[in-house]
Amino acid sequence: MTFPVVGMVGGGQLARMTHEAGIPLGIRFRLLSDTPQDSAALVAGDVVVGDHRDLATLRAFARGCDVITFDHEHVPTEHLRALEAEGIPVRPGPDALVHAQDKGVMRARLGALGIPCPRHRIVRDPADVARFAAEVGGFPVVLKTTRGGYDGKGVWVVRSAAEAADVAAPFLAGVPVLAEEKVDFVRELAANVVRSPHGQAVAYPVVESRQVDGVCDTVIAPAPDLPAARATHAQELALRVAGELGVVGHLAVELFEAADGRILVNELAMRPHNSGHWTQDGAATSQFANHLRAVLDLPLGDPRPRAPWTVMANVLGGDFPDMYPAYLHCMARDPGLKIHMYGKDVKPGRKVGHVTTYGDDLPDVIERARHAADYLRGTIDE
Amino acid sequence: MTFPVVGMVGGGQLARMTHEAGIPLGIRFRLLSDTPQDSAALVAGDVVVGDHRDLATLRAFARGCDVITFDHEHVPTEHLRALEAEGIPVRPGPDALVHAQDKGVMRARLGALGIPCPRHRIVRDPADVARFAAEVGGFPVVLKTTRGGYDGKGVWVVRSAAEAADVAAPFLAGVPVLAEEKVDFVRELAANVVRSPHGQAVAYPVVESRQVDGVCDTVIAPAPDLPAARATHAQELALRVAGELGVVGHLAVELFEAADGRILVNELAMRPHNSGHWTQDGAATSQFANHLRAVLDLPLGDPRPRAPWTVMANVLGGDFPDMYPAYLHCMARDPGLKIHMYGKDVKPGRKVGHVTTYGDDLPDVIERARHAADYLRGTIDE
Repeated sequence: MTFPVVGMVGGGQLARMTHEAGIPLGIRFRLLSDTPQDSAALVAGDVVVGDHRDLATLRAFARGCDVITFDHEHVPTEHLRALEAEGIPVRPGPDALVHAQDKGVMRARLGALGIPCPRHRIVRDPADVARFAAEVGGFPVVLKTTRGGYDGKGVWVVRSAAEAADVAAPFLAGVPVLAEEKVDFVRELAANVVRSPHGQAVAYPVVESRQVDGVCDTVIAPAPDLPAARATHAQELALRVAGELGVVGHLAVELFEAADGRILVNELAMRPHNSGHWTQDGAATSQFANHLRAVLDLPLGDPRPRAPWTVMANVLGGDFPDMYPAYLHCMARDPGLKIHMYGKDVKPGRKVGHVTTYGDDLPDVIERARHAADYLRGTIDE
Repeated sequence: MTFPVVGMVGGGQLARMTHEAGIPLGIRFRLLSDTPQDSAALVAGDVVVGDHRDLATLRAFARGCDVITFDHEHVPTEHLRALEAEGIPVRPGPDALVHAQDKGVMRARLGALGIPCPRHRIVRDPADVARFAAEVGGFPVVLKTTRGGYDGKGVWVVRSAAEAADVAAPFLAGVPVLAEEKVDFVRELAANVVRSPHGQAVAYPVVESRQVDGVCDTVIAPAPDLPAARATHAQELALRVAGELGVVGHLAVELFEAADGRILVNELAMRPHNSGHWTQDGAATSQFANHLRAVLDLPLGDPRPRAPWTVMANVLGGDFPDMYPAYLHCMARDPGLKIHMYGKDVKPGRKVGHVTTYGDDLPDVIERARHAADYLRGTIDE
């Protein structure tokens, strides 16, 4: 039997949901996980426990796989090049992936392609931050470590040179820091696409993404009141980025929608993404299923929505370590609610799951999703 | 964390798809499988390999579980009673399950409840078969072993007492044989329901099930041209059976629709069932997700369809041991096709997967599903 073995590096919830999508495809899913209790390791049949930063571990893991892909973007670029040099397909490849791993490289490349971004440059120290602020019309500005940040970590909004000095740790460690203008955006959007090695690509509907404290909170698909031309422009932009960078698999392009209607690229992720979880219940083909098809060079699945509105709400850890008792209320209140828990221990503010609702009445669909997420978190109790 | 452990006995594709449905619920799924290569064992994280007919094995397996349920109906009734006596919830329980395991018991009980069945009785030998045939107006009649049959096995259509003698093996072994009139049905239907310990139940749309050589071939949801009153009657009948028999979990009630419009019960299955696979892509809540909710005594999910028509076609093994190459054609031809493979080795006539399509043009939806199933099987090559 030639059903291929897909090796995914990283055992978090993205890998868990990719495994879930791989089951009906009959492909063999192999996981490289930090621990046996990681989200995906709990539910998968073929798990290797090991350190993704160790080349020997990666080599041994890849040996049984037909293709390697990722739940996260922390595998060192040089290790990926080593695997590629040994003939193991790595998808997305290191040449593409570096643009998701290094914000400085990403900004430079998008700039070279003429793709609209916030004004930005690498800054050397707090004084340089102040000079940058002057260049863009004043504070506040946004500082980001070029590597390693996610879910709001490694990102600071600074209102003065003094605040920039408070953020001094990366500067002192010699880590390159990217300064960006703080875009006065109306809202954040995501234009997600999937691209194959053979160049086929599909574009999902553009969604609105609402953040709370730097973490994704609610996603609405499609983005309400987004003019068709602007939505198409965002999709074309994402498809162009995917093609120019040679991305294989899912590409999430996080965008700012400015007050004047301009669309600016905020961040890139080359893996399934929080902004695409709604597709599990709301689209004909989920981001996870399409990511697998792409890395296997199979024809891509229909990305179209199945409902007029689909809303995803993240479930973050609150004060209660046990969410299972909340199922009684949530399931009884809303028989159409789709719950997706990750098998992770509850810690305050940690992403431990998400809920999805769909229907034709947007305020109702939003209310249902938010109520369930808040109830599971313990923020409300009725 | 109190997310419960659901123990499923049997490692076939029903368990595989139940595990798939359990992943987003965050419940812990434990499997008792005949071998490590069984369909579900390939993809699950917590697998015990052992013989479900051995009480000590069952006891050890159940010890880690909050509830026990089934992928098949071959666990001896006395073992289930032993587990129940030791305080382990078994759902469905042995008192209900015996009606799915023993066709003689099922017929007697449905008769006592006044639920329409084909005329029938237990027969002792070929001469008795001839007497029965005379009672129902002549041959052909159907003979069934009371225990152990599935997918057309253990079922014979006999056209004479001589043919009945050819089927002599069960008679000679002293196995009770049930004789039934051969109903002149217009078509076969299935009215599937899910019932909780607390008495809540949901009824799925009544489907049409087309058999080829005694094996389910195509399922159409909802059954076309089924008068609303007849559909409701079939659903009420299934709900009544579930309630009277105390079924917990999914109950498939296979029905004959006679030429005069009467609905007769053919068989019962108390587990997720082939006639309900369409629900994975075609209903708001799949049969697998609702089976889990029921055995966990959670509120049930919405059973309503998500598309006007949903069609499932079984993929049976043909002449080609490797179906993966067929994905290129099938996926390219139909980006909306939903493929569900079971990870089983291809053997001629063996159920190795199914495909599902949905849409608003029934002939087109049927054609898409049948084409994909035939192409994967190797019956057609373009």
